Amino acid sequence: MLTKIDHIGIAVNDLESAMKVYGDFTLKDADHVEELDSEGVKIAFFNVGESAIELLQPTREDSPIAKFINKRGEGIHHICYGVKDLEKSMENLVKLGYKCLDEKPRNGAHNTRVAFFHPKQTLGTLIELSEKK
Amino acid sequence: MLTKIDHIGIAVNDLESAMKVYGDFTLKDADHVEELDSEGVKIAFFNVGESAIELLQPTREDSPIAKFINKRGEGIHHICYGVKDLEKSMENLVKLGYKCLDEKPRNGAHNTRVAFFHPKQTLGTLIELSEKK
Repeated sequence: MLTKIDHIGIAVNDLESAMKVYGDFTLKDADHVEELDSEGVKIAFFNVGESAIELLQPTREDSPIAKFINKRGEGIHHICYGVKDLEKSMENLVKLGYKCLDEKPRNGAHNTRVAFFHPKQTLGTLIELSEKK
Repeated sequence: MLTKIDHIGIAVNDLESAMKVYGDFTLKDADHVEELDSEGVKIAFFNVGESAIELLQPTREDSPIAKFINKRGEGIHHICYGVKDLEKSMENLVKLGYKCLDEKPRNGAHNTRVAFFHPKQTLGTLIELSEKK
């Protein structure tokens, strides 16, 4: 069961100008900015209600976000939903025929465990499920 | 100021099978299903926390959702944010140089007034602002 939209991940060319856009719409500064070297991205979070907007700028050409932008341009890369029992959700969805990109939950940002589902079966958008540790 | 993600609008080829996908992920039936003849769409809402997922299937070839799918395939069509003072938000954003597709707020679904901002200036995704009447 999905408890909330945890965040929407948006792939952007330039984090500074993307932060300006969301600054203009939210009338505040980013709530959190971070560079994740392992993923090849710089990210900024803007909290909106119980959710957040995650802006992702690639920091190298071989990062998944760079590949996404090269293919499709800037835009929404994934939707992350909060869940209460990640293993059970994964097991149930895999049983129903959905392809989970992770065999087991992996560690996500902000003290979470996460798993991804392939966009081909989920209406064209990569779906991330996330559980607070 | 954005108060919450009101909903994410996803353009889909077939509402029945899209409802199956979100039924599998949310473990429930759609909270609301409706046909909007004026817009040329059939829609289904799945509430998720304080937000909702809006699935939109075109009902004729000249509807904006049909054009979107023909060009880009199934996927996220817009993000709708809740705001407290729509006129003031519009005025402020237009002053900052953003192109609002509506000169004045128009009536939206569920007793709301809404206005849209062009995706070219908003990181590749159409943005809707919505205020409860």
